[in-house]
Amino acid sequence: MKRRIPTRIYLAEDEMPDAWYNLRADMPTKPAPMLHPQTFKPITEEDLRAILSAEAARQELDEESRFVPIPEGILDFYRAFRPSPLIRAYYLEKALDTPAEIYYKFEGTNTSGSHKLNSAGPQAFYAREEGLSSLATETGAGQWGSAMAMACGFYGLDLSVYMVKVSSEQKPYRKALMESYGARVIPSPSDTTEAGRRILAANPDSGGSLGCAISEAMEASRRSDKCRYVLGSVLNHVMLHQSVIGLEAKAALDKYGLRPDIVIGCAGGGSNLGGLIAPFVAERLAGKSAARFIAVEPASCPTLTRGRYAYDFGDTAGTTPLMMMRTLGAGFMPAPGHAGGLRYHGMNPVLSKLHNDGLLEARAEPQLAVFDAATRFMKCEGILPAPESAHAIKAAIDEALECRRSGEKKTILFGLSGTGYFDMTAYTAYNSGAMTDKALSDEDLEKGFASIPAVSGD
Amino acid sequence: MKRRIPTRIYLAEDEMPDAWYNLRADMPTKPAPMLHPQTFKPITEEDLRAILSAEAARQELDEESRFVPIPEGILDFYRAFRPSPLIRAYYLEKALDTPAEIYYKFEGTNTSGSHKLNSAGPQAFYAREEGLSSLATETGAGQWGSAMAMACGFYGLDLSVYMVKVSSEQKPYRKALMESYGARVIPSPSDTTEAGRRILAANPDSGGSLGCAISEAMEASRRSDKCRYVLGSVLNHVMLHQSVIGLEAKAALDKYGLRPDIVIGCAGGGSNLGGLIAPFVAERLAGKSAARFIAVEPASCPTLTRGRYAYDFGDTAGTTPLMMMRTLGAGFMPAPGHAGGLRYHGMNPVLSKLHNDGLLEARAEPQLAVFDAATRFMKCEGILPAPESAHAIKAAIDEALECRRSGEKKTILFGLSGTGYFDMTAYTAYNSGAMTDKALSDEDLEKGFASIPAVSGD
Repeated sequence: MKRRIPTRIYLAEDEMPDAWYNLRADMPTKPAPMLHPQTFKPITEEDLRAILSAEAARQELDEESRFVPIPEGILDFYRAFRPSPLIRAYYLEKALDTPAEIYYKFEGTNTSGSHKLNSAGPQAFYAREEGLSSLATETGAGQWGSAMAMACGFYGLDLSVYMVKVSSEQKPYRKALMESYGARVIPSPSDTTEAGRRILAANPDSGGSLGCAISEAMEASRRSDKCRYVLGSVLNHVMLHQSVIGLEAKAALDKYGLRPDIVIGCAGGGSNLGGLIAPFVAERLAGKSAARFIAVEPASCPTLTRGRYAYDFGDTAGTTPLMMMRTLGAGFMPAPGHAGGLRYHGMNPVLSKLHNDGLLEARAEPQLAVFDAATRFMKCEGILPAPESAHAIKAAIDEALECRRSGEKKTILFGLSGTGYFDMTAYTAYNSGAMTDKALSDEDLEKGFASIPAVSGD
Repeated sequence: MKRRIPTRIYLAEDEMPDAWYNLRADMPTKPAPMLHPQTFKPITEEDLRAILSAEAARQELDEESRFVPIPEGILDFYRAFRPSPLIRAYYLEKALDTPAEIYYKFEGTNTSGSHKLNSAGPQAFYAREEGLSSLATETGAGQWGSAMAMACGFYGLDLSVYMVKVSSEQKPYRKALMESYGARVIPSPSDTTEAGRRILAANPDSGGSLGCAISEAMEASRRSDKCRYVLGSVLNHVMLHQSVIGLEAKAALDKYGLRPDIVIGCAGGGSNLGGLIAPFVAERLAGKSAARFIAVEPASCPTLTRGRYAYDFGDTAGTTPLMMMRTLGAGFMPAPGHAGGLRYHGMNPVLSKLHNDGLLEARAEPQLAVFDAATRFMKCEGILPAPESAHAIKAAIDEALECRRSGEKKTILFGLSGTGYFDMTAYTAYNSGAMTDKALSDEDLEKGFASIPAVSGD
């Protein structure tokens, strides 16, 4: 049987995008400005340059350029693992007996195992171009740390990774992977920073959080003027780099005259989702499509579905700029039983704005349902998904089953942002029946909300 | 910069081979026949059907068909992960400053992480087509067991995997992966079989061996006439299925008018190497090329370089048919410090014959040199190789450096048979300096040789 549309659609190397797409340029109303953490005034590029590389700082505040050219030095890095395949989920469609056509953009074919490499490369490249010698960052589930370790190995930069302690204990092989690429990995909270020591003093058994690891990494990066901080999600320049996902997906669909009716992505800090949907949101804003966009988050960290839309810090120590975003408060801690990533308290400001404007739907899923979907998917499609990515699978399956009920032949696109090879502890817990879901109470939420500062931005 | 040859060459889905290539049909003298383990007479298809599925038995003895059509039900499975990329090692070439062009066929993009899936699919498919309900097999490093777990999950068959105990302890996540796909994993030697109990009685602390695990799996498979045994390497029908690697690699090179001067593969039982080189050996046999073929094996299990060419059993209990092959003796045990796979005592009979006829070169590498090569490779090419595959990388680097010395612009092709995501224990040992090499003494070899039966085959 010859298929009109192959199972895997690959772009040719010379069809790869040579510029990132900046959705902010096409938004009729822009997100509220980022604020300085002390003055509460809109932050300047110069302010940001104290934290980020100069080019990252420029891109972070750039709301005008629709396209930002990708330098040859980054394209050279991208060609080591891109273009990534767009896969038609023939096996899953058959298993679901759905009239829907399901496609997924698979970002897990590189060794870091996820889309994070798309921004790790540029961030390391700019740092090297600007004469920096080292970088500091945090990692939760380990995907971002692995990606930065690979990028710093490639570009020849030193890297310190503050890894959320509970994650470093659950995933010793993630640590080994980062070390194999030459990175230094420090479980967080640690006694190597003020921020870490403060948390440990309050709670010696703290398993850590992304907010705390960010505080530690930022503090560490300030120790040398040859060092800067890099972040794997949430920020606008990260989402900009991730637009390569959506641009490639759109180019591959365009080859076959396809246009998605629904675009789905898992959402932690939002970079994968934002990168995937960006060019499709542009079409909708231009009146060229009526596509729906769905963010899927864990029920144990429901930033979009239960968070507040407010100015908040990106870290627990309150050292980052303030962002207007959906947030659970930097003091929020997901339940200890929560297995995967997607445990960040906030959400990229652009996505938060789209959600607030009614352009982005959101749903929260309990983890058992997510692992059910992952197992169903892996048995027919073959690929073992990252628990994070399995949130998107869950929603894609639900939408495809809805099509079976309604008889509609919709085109569903979702982001399979990474693989679960380093998440076997979670899969073992699921397989053995040890995994549970604990409902998040309003009291738990209020504890997080209490940490949101009272800043209006006016 | 536009490259004439892209970094990754993908065949289109409809360019995938629809038949396997059977090298035996083109060999001027055939390998000596397989012998029945009791009568020592050439084995018949009927004999083999007691162990293998009928089609596997037929293919095992088929020396006439040059091409064996791949059924649509197997192509359907292949399309879930094939075609695999042929990658131009631009980054490695640059790092080595070599005039050589290096290409590698990368079989690690599927979840099982290696080429083993190419034969797991067909073996499960034939079993299901013939009405069998379950399969039993062994696994060493875990790649074959993972591949069979995926294939049995896909085709709906029960699977028992006897996993070499030392490997199951080093790689708990491999076990979890197999269980996620629904397989039952039993550390070997176990008390569930006669063969296992005999080994445990002699040595309660035995860490196991492939030869022992094969004995256990074969014994288990004989308990039901709805069950058969499947093997991931060594046998001719396995090498036949793996010819898909070489056929795709050749088709991709042909697109750019390229012909390899040297083809390199790691060698355990020989299926990956044999599958990769088969169509290129055919060209050499036909006088169309002067390509060299290099098998790379671990110094701690040097089957081709230090083994005997003799009839031997495939397992420790002496229950398999006898094969004329290079062998260290089924009683051979690699040193406990040996980290990776490639620990089988014998070598596929076709490859053993090619080696004996002077067509296949062989070299043995100590593991520290292999991990050095792996680390060098991963830092520039990005991909974390399986320790097994890193043997091929070592030889490819050596040949490319030889080209730098000689100034020759050779075309080198090697097989990157899999990824090392489940081998982080070994990488951690290497990174920390805990990994060692222990020279294999002639006395150790003699112990293995003592287990080779005195069978002439006349």
